[in-house]
Amino acid sequence: MSTPIIFDTDPGVDDAQAIAIALAHPDIELLGLTTTFGNVTIEVATHNALLLAELAGQRIPVAQGAAEPLVKKKNPPPGHIHGDNGLGNIALPDISTRAVAQSAPQFIVEQVNARPGEVVLVAVGPLGNLAAALQLDPTLVDKVKRVVVMGGSIREGGNVTPVAEANMFNDPHAAARVLQASWPLTLVGLDATHRCVLDPASMEKIARAQGDLGRVLAESYAFYRAFYQKALGIDGCCPHDSCALVWLLRPDLFEVERGTLSVVTDGLAEGQTLMAPHSRQFVDGRWSQGTLADVCLNADGPAVIAWIVDTLTANPAR
Amino acid sequence: MSTPIIFDTDPGVDDAQAIAIALAHPDIELLGLTTTFGNVTIEVATHNALLLAELAGQRIPVAQGAAEPLVKKKNPPPGHIHGDNGLGNIALPDISTRAVAQSAPQFIVEQVNARPGEVVLVAVGPLGNLAAALQLDPTLVDKVKRVVVMGGSIREGGNVTPVAEANMFNDPHAAARVLQASWPLTLVGLDATHRCVLDPASMEKIARAQGDLGRVLAESYAFYRAFYQKALGIDGCCPHDSCALVWLLRPDLFEVERGTLSVVTDGLAEGQTLMAPHSRQFVDGRWSQGTLADVCLNADGPAVIAWIVDTLTANPAR
Repeated sequence: MSTPIIFDTDPGVDDAQAIAIALAHPDIELLGLTTTFGNVTIEVATHNALLLAELAGQRIPVAQGAAEPLVKKKNPPPGHIHGDNGLGNIALPDISTRAVAQSAPQFIVEQVNARPGEVVLVAVGPLGNLAAALQLDPTLVDKVKRVVVMGGSIREGGNVTPVAEANMFNDPHAAARVLQASWPLTLVGLDATHRCVLDPASMEKIARAQGDLGRVLAESYAFYRAFYQKALGIDGCCPHDSCALVWLLRPDLFEVERGTLSVVTDGLAEGQTLMAPHSRQFVDGRWSQGTLADVCLNADGPAVIAWIVDTLTANPAR
Repeated sequence: MSTPIIFDTDPGVDDAQAIAIALAHPDIELLGLTTTFGNVTIEVATHNALLLAELAGQRIPVAQGAAEPLVKKKNPPPGHIHGDNGLGNIALPDISTRAVAQSAPQFIVEQVNARPGEVVLVAVGPLGNLAAALQLDPTLVDKVKRVVVMGGSIREGGNVTPVAEANMFNDPHAAARVLQASWPLTLVGLDATHRCVLDPASMEKIARAQGDLGRVLAESYAFYRAFYQKALGIDGCCPHDSCALVWLLRPDLFEVERGTLSVVTDGLAEGQTLMAPHSRQFVDGRWSQGTLADVCLNADGPAVIAWIVDTLTANPAR
């Protein structure tokens, strides 16, 4: 049975790979893409979401959302990682479609209320849209089927600070709101995504199967790969955002622990996600107040990559 | 050649084991024990330091230090871990010696100035005495041979909060001062000490060799072990404080990375140690400002335990 999802995204090279999966997989019903600033500006994010759906030959609603963080000052987008155009600065075709009239938070509220108990929110950028949707309709916590967030790092260290992952760092206040809300939530952070490296040979296979979309995936991957090579000494890229979808359809490939999450909003540890495991007691109770979440602490990297390649080669772009 | 050290301590069950090593090892010249609140109150810490030296038949100066954190309110001592008397609530003999007239910080300043370039400060409790010594004499940074701190956790998670190790949490402001001072410093934190488990059979061997001191080590170990079993499901104890001395004499048993340290003083991540590895760049420069330290990120646990047992059996209490 196929799962209806809303994919909240800031594409972004690894977002594009994940969007390709969401568009391709028969077990996913993609209700819409909601966009946020993050890897790119909000305008670029919306443009790329529209473009990627067009390249796959699909009409998917795109709703534009947060242009800035809730509270903190916005950091400049990381052009050296994703390119200023979010897709490795490659030449891109023109687009012919436009975003829907609703804002991303309103789109989320309407879609979830139309199918209570069915919709999964998969969020792979800063969490402003989900925080704003909760403000519009706090009853969402009882109406979503689940929230899957790509972000955070429990033991792995950060990628933009020594302890913070980029999505959490980009809007820590929104992240605190979303990760502590009383909805069923899975966190897929660097502890899992860093176990997975999408190698060049795998990307070639994907590119061959995905037509025009495949060309954009492969060429933007090349730019992203150069960053990984220079900054981290890795040949290949972590398909961070795809991992959220892999968890949704193949949770058996991840090691999960139950715990209460919180997010640091200020100071040296700004943007850090903390997990108080369900089984542990600490010096006081402040880390164990909220809802229990499922937190991915490890992944079977090669199996995740194999699943991604299978998905994108077995379901060629239409 | 033997290394002159000052051992700054809050004994404490695992402190007692480390003090036994400092008293026993021929390559260590123990200039003095300086005491701090932490595992126990300052009065208990000083009492136990005196007692442990007496039990080993040695006259070692003991200088009393910090009774409270620099800034934050003091937490109650963890009587359920170390016992209210710091040594597992076992019956203890009376002591006949007293602390020296100098405070711990003054003792540190005088000893280091008497032998510039020679003295290693080994600190295994909250860092108030070292912070206060730096206030009295900022030139210490150029006069100590090295500072070895047992404390902190980079990747391992915390033991009193999801991210903070107890010594750092007990006085994060002092820790921030000490870990960012421009002296040569090695951090031996949970990333290393959690790899080492002192099992009951090893403790029996130690007890047999260490006479009256051995009895106290073994009986206090039994109390500490019960806590480990209940709270963490481990049969044995991590000899946290001993690891600082093991690093000093056998650095080859540890994996070390160079990085800049900082300590979070407030908020949810209070007491967390952050390391910006020398080789990494982050979203801004605030984590990479200070001196580079040597940070232990792993240890050969079985070899560390074997070294501790060898040391305490080859050098029986006099």
